[in-house]
Amino acid sequence: MADLAAVKAALSAQRIETPSWGYGNSGTRFRVFPQQGVPRDPFEKLADAAAVHAATGVAPLVSLHIPWDRVPDFGKLAAHAESLGVRIGAINSNTFQDEDYRIGSVCHPDPAVRRKATDHLLECVDVMDATGSRDLKLWFADGTNYPGQDDIVGRQDRLAEALSEVYARLGEHQRMVLEYKLFEPAFYTTDVPDWGTSYAHCLKLGPKAKVVVDTGHHAPGTNIEFIVAFLLREGKLGAFDFNSRFYADDDLMAGAADPFQLFRILHEVAKNGGLDPAHGVAFMLDQCHNIEAKIPAIIRSVMNVQEATAKALLVDLDALRAAQSAGDVLGANAVLMDAYNTDVRPLLAEVREEMGLSPDPLAAYRASGYADQILADRVGGTQAGWGA
Amino acid sequence: MADLAAVKAALSAQRIETPSWGYGNSGTRFRVFPQQGVPRDPFEKLADAAAVHAATGVAPLVSLHIPWDRVPDFGKLAAHAESLGVRIGAINSNTFQDEDYRIGSVCHPDPAVRRKATDHLLECVDVMDATGSRDLKLWFADGTNYPGQDDIVGRQDRLAEALSEVYARLGEHQRMVLEYKLFEPAFYTTDVPDWGTSYAHCLKLGPKAKVVVDTGHHAPGTNIEFIVAFLLREGKLGAFDFNSRFYADDDLMAGAADPFQLFRILHEVAKNGGLDPAHGVAFMLDQCHNIEAKIPAIIRSVMNVQEATAKALLVDLDALRAAQSAGDVLGANAVLMDAYNTDVRPLLAEVREEMGLSPDPLAAYRASGYADQILADRVGGTQAGWGA
Amino acid sequence: MADLAAVKAALSAQRIETPSWGYGNSGTRFRVFPQQGVPRDPFEKLADAAAVHAATGVAPLVSLHIPWDRVPDFGKLAAHAESLGVRIGAINSNTFQDEDYRIGSVCHPDPAVRRKATDHLLECVDVMDATGSRDLKLWFADGTNYPGQDDIVGRQDRLAEALSEVYARLGEHQRMVLEYKLFEPAFYTTDVPDWGTSYAHCLKLGPKAKVVVDTGHHAPGTNIEFIVAFLLREGKLGAFDFNSRFYADDDLMAGAADPFQLFRILHEVAKNGGLDPAHGVAFMLDQCHNIEAKIPAIIRSVMNVQEATAKALLVDLDALRAAQSAGDVLGANAVLMDAYNTDVRPLLAEVREEMGLSPDPLAAYRASGYADQILADRVGGTQAGWGA
Amino acid sequence: MADLAAVKAALSAQRIETPSWGYGNSGTRFRVFPQQGVPRDPFEKLADAAAVHAATGVAPLVSLHIPWDRVPDFGKLAAHAESLGVRIGAINSNTFQDEDYRIGSVCHPDPAVRRKATDHLLECVDVMDATGSRDLKLWFADGTNYPGQDDIVGRQDRLAEALSEVYARLGEHQRMVLEYKLFEPAFYTTDVPDWGTSYAHCLKLGPKAKVVVDTGHHAPGTNIEFIVAFLLREGKLGAFDFNSRFYADDDLMAGAADPFQLFRILHEVAKNGGLDPAHGVAFMLDQCHNIEAKIPAIIRSVMNVQEATAKALLVDLDALRAAQSAGDVLGANAVLMDAYNTDVRPLLAEVREEMGLSPDPLAAYRASGYADQILADRVGGTQAGWGA
Repeated sequence: MADLAAVKAALSAQRIETPSWGYGNSGTRFRVFPQQGVPRDPFEKLADAAAVHAATGVAPLVSLHIPWDRVPDFGKLAAHAESLGVRIGAINSNTFQDEDYRIGSVCHPDPAVRRKATDHLLECVDVMDATGSRDLKLWFADGTNYPGQDDIVGRQDRLAEALSEVYARLGEHQRMVLEYKLFEPAFYTTDVPDWGTSYAHCLKLGPKAKVVVDTGHHAPGTNIEFIVAFLLREGKLGAFDFNSRFYADDDLMAGAADPFQLFRILHEVAKNGGLDPAHGVAFMLDQCHNIEAKIPAIIRSVMNVQEATAKALLVDLDALRAAQSAGDVLGANAVLMDAYNTDVRPLLAEVREEMGLSPDPLAAYRASGYADQILADRVGGTQAGWGA
Repeated sequence: MADLAAVKAALSAQRIETPSWGYGNSGTRFRVFPQQGVPRDPFEKLADAAAVHAATGVAPLVSLHIPWDRVPDFGKLAAHAESLGVRIGAINSNTFQDEDYRIGSVCHPDPAVRRKATDHLLECVDVMDATGSRDLKLWFADGTNYPGQDDIVGRQDRLAEALSEVYARLGEHQRMVLEYKLFEPAFYTTDVPDWGTSYAHCLKLGPKAKVVVDTGHHAPGTNIEFIVAFLLREGKLGAFDFNSRFYADDDLMAGAADPFQLFRILHEVAKNGGLDPAHGVAFMLDQCHNIEAKIPAIIRSVMNVQEATAKALLVDLDALRAAQSAGDVLGANAVLMDAYNTDVRPLLAEVREEMGLSPDPLAAYRASGYADQILADRVGGTQAGWGA
Repeated sequence: MADLAAVKAALSAQRIETPSWGYGNSGTRFRVFPQQGVPRDPFEKLADAAAVHAATGVAPLVSLHIPWDRVPDFGKLAAHAESLGVRIGAINSNTFQDEDYRIGSVCHPDPAVRRKATDHLLECVDVMDATGSRDLKLWFADGTNYPGQDDIVGRQDRLAEALSEVYARLGEHQRMVLEYKLFEPAFYTTDVPDWGTSYAHCLKLGPKAKVVVDTGHHAPGTNIEFIVAFLLREGKLGAFDFNSRFYADDDLMAGAADPFQLFRILHEVAKNGGLDPAHGVAFMLDQCHNIEAKIPAIIRSVMNVQEATAKALLVDLDALRAAQSAGDVLGANAVLMDAYNTDVRPLLAEVREEMGLSPDPLAAYRASGYADQILADRVGGTQAGWGA
Repeated sequence: MADLAAVKAALSAQRIETPSWGYGNSGTRFRVFPQQGVPRDPFEKLADAAAVHAATGVAPLVSLHIPWDRVPDFGKLAAHAESLGVRIGAINSNTFQDEDYRIGSVCHPDPAVRRKATDHLLECVDVMDATGSRDLKLWFADGTNYPGQDDIVGRQDRLAEALSEVYARLGEHQRMVLEYKLFEPAFYTTDVPDWGTSYAHCLKLGPKAKVVVDTGHHAPGTNIEFIVAFLLREGKLGAFDFNSRFYADDDLMAGAADPFQLFRILHEVAKNGGLDPAHGVAFMLDQCHNIEAKIPAIIRSVMNVQEATAKALLVDLDALRAAQSAGDVLGANAVLMDAYNTDVRPLLAEVREEMGLSPDPLAAYRASGYADQILADRVGGTQAGWGA
């Protein structure tokens, strides 16, 4: 049986990072439906993140996205975060929205565009220096739409060159985490389409380069927990971007589409040491709340990750190993399912109360009056979204 | 052997309809890259469509999208089209961009929103009356993102009610064609997700309701030509929206991603009478030219559909039937592949010359100077896109 | 809140049918691993099914597969079933294993093969007469492997003809339920590939023809509960073949791969009246236990269906409808998830005890000594499998 | 423009390896349909392969599968091959058909089973010594069907250990090529599911370990030519297993399902030096001819690979690079499509005639009388299949 005190300790120690852009407007190519009370600048985004942390107690880190969150003085932004009880997490680069990036950024055939893109990545490391962030999170929209459009191998060469230059710029305690994605916005080739490509580049770069697993970035049928286990075995799992999907990169709330998959992923994490902070795995959300209220959706997502983690921690590993060693297919599966079928909400309520929090984060958020306050306060100005 | 004169006659008689929105800007949720020379209003879109028709000789019809192409006087727009040598084709409704449609239009739980959406559909029939269009093309973005969000059956009831009301409004020679789509922008349920759903509604509505097959709207592995053959057998194939895809609804140029699939589809069309205008199948493009020049991309797409059609017409149906009846698997497949492996570009060059056209539509377009002219003329103003 | 007495009543009234072939050997194209104690004839299969029913109390029906379960006297087999406390359920036809069926059965280009296949279907109705079965369950392996191999429309015509003849032979209280499957064993076209095709044929045949939903027979990303809801709305859902899958038609234990999906399916069933016996929906298992012990795997599967059903019955429908009507996306989703996140195992243990059963069916099975008994008894002879 | 003499030289120099098991019976889990004239032993399989080589002139190598092709004296088998004008190619291991391998072979939890499996791999190297084969081709069916069934990381450790031991046994000019496969026969995890896993193991093993790309072993939507290009860039592409698929690992004739994909793959091969024998890429077929005549199907597959190669060689690389460098999306795509749309059958007919062959391999095979001869000769005995 899992040791309940250890389970609770692990749950109260877990940290889930929320993305600044999750608080802003987002949508599909068909329409971005704006919502009332949405932040207008990075400071207001941090305030929303602080509201999530106040309700859940496990979300003190906030990822920034440059240039969406560019401010004149990042030291001041970091200090503002601290004043709200949160901290700046990963710095996310953006090389997909400038006019120059129509057919690529660091993989573009034109060296001038590559220079510009690489300079942006270096600028992001400057931001890390200013904010004390550990991780530079890289996702490249680079790819092609039509067969023949560009040279696959040539683009890998250009990618490797840019990554090398940025890697060399990293400080001693800084890391580069490289995300992969099957498709979108490129539809024929993507320059980092799968974990193998990211892993191969990270391996050559060195120990400060690690792979990011975004749970929505795989082909149908891909076994994500296998990838997670494999990367943990190799010491190359840098971070998660949690969200959920039924079809493609739907970016729904984590745990909403396939809670059993989220549990299986966290089972591999827990069993293979990934919950230990020393392992350096960052647990981030990366989602779009296109039609639902954003702050409650993020709180719910944090809770979903916690519930999956709690179930993972409840797996009776001794019994599991015994059944596995004996080749007892049904017995081993039953051990796992016993944990999954447990209702962990009471346990998490207890953990929260022991942390001095409300047992019900959503109720606590509603009771806080924050939602009404931002509706009242945030009148006028330009709402934040993917463009700003 | 196929009769070459008949093949040529069929090729010169084929009509491919282009979409007004294909000439405007489009993109992904990550970025719309604007292009120079893009039309600023429906009149300029028609001019671009006329340039495509001038080069290809087979694209005299242009689909409109309401409200993107709303003008004060549709009769005037239709007359303008005629003056350019083209005609207004299908009228496409849009019930996905208004603020009210965040969680649905004709399937929305709120009757007031449904009323508004249905009124828009009725307005589209008014536009048909004014423009002489035959087809009301309906695509609904309606659906849900989260399990439980709304009632699947209740939404079907609401859909059926709206369709009925609009069907009753159709004139004697007007039709309603109903498109289906697996997902996007809705990510959990879509209210018309597959051909079966569209077919079932059309069957209840009556003979003026037919199914639209958009080649990018299926789950991976779906055999689209089977659906096409089945609908032709039932007399329920109303139209195609051609485009191509590697992953989801990528909306690439028709024939670019899987030219063999396009050939197989047109083989079923040709074999089952679908090229006969009496059958009423509309051959439309529905694409996004996010990174490539738009008019040349549309010309290329028209040519790709023509090439697939030419190959389909070259299939030796007598030999095919003989091999099929004999259970000769390899022989029957070889008959089909013989046609596919034929280079039909010389044949199409001949057909074009016999139609008084340049054998090379792209060269003809380049030679026309149109591209330079629109760059020079279309300065200032607001470029057309999915929002306008 | 759901009414607990009604929930319990529904759970104790639910009937899950198990397949005779699930007790025999099965495997993949790479290998069938035989297991010890496997039945050698239909009588022994019924005995195993009776052991499942003894442990669970809700599995009194057993589907047969002809010719695998062909016996000289079906009346005697039915009587034997009764003596064991079970009954014969659906009769499954098999038109895919005879040498003649290499390129098809009822869709074969050769009328002699079609005659033979149709005669087999008629023979199955004879078996139904002899056994008192209500349902003729039809799954056709028919299809093609290569483009051009046969005529898609011609095959539909032949299919329709065979179905018509068999439909006409059905008795007053007999039904025909028609299964669809995306692919396998045919790899290019399948003659009944999706629910739309099955639905269209059933509609033409008449009220005694209904659709079977096998949960493993869909393209990736297909929303199965949408199909279930749609068919219930149309009165055309005849039966389920439950199993689970990660990739294709994996035929794993129901609920093993995606328990949340199974819950969502049963939520649509429960909400739309499908649990009411008057609706006539048959709840069948159709699985392969290639590497795990068969009887315990079937017991586990029955329990998984029960757990999903219990959660579905616990959904607070009043709260759900209120949130749905209000357009409260997160609230409506939360109502559904509350039920899903409940641990229903204690409730089901109670239901079983109230039915006079052990609260733990697997423990009861182990305690019964049946597993040891069949190991000891079933020595020699030829084990049953897909070939016999 | 491509240099025609060089194109012809490359086409006549290409070698395509055929699999011994392709000449035997195969099928799906539903049924193996035996065919007349099928070989009864490895000697007869070699004779069939020699008939393919006689007709095509480019298929002198034959892969063996141990134990299906186990003979008392492999030197004698190799000499027999030489006498027929062919040679033994890769040696394929089989660790999926013995009773002991129900839940794994080299990844099995029981060390005794792992020992047995590893010993089999070592035996295969002995066979390589005896036959002069260069490549040990490893495909492992290892995996699990149910979550929790076994430890993902533990299985990787066991896999690595077995591979290391076998790698150490390789002679100076021998290689190990490691295949990956998404799923089947395992349905939850597969121990080598993707190219990344194979690549990571090969990297650790050393330069004699390379990746095998089987074109049917990917998730839907995977861009195979990207993987091919990536592996060529890394010097880690060892071999192809060509076949084609619409859904899963359908094992249809190469080029039958998506000829454009096969062309794109061979374009990457050609452009990146992979056709140069010094690069060591083996071009193998791995297919199942379940319903069609086997030898003609293999001839057709060889021809399909040749046609795709010819088109790839015709790509005007100078024009392609110019368009790519200029960011001319449509122009670069058009260069590629020009080659693809060319009918290369006349060119290949010429190449064959210059090689002293019939321009039409299928006609040559029919004219040879071989098909009738084997029907007459191969009466009685046990036909070869996947079991032998």
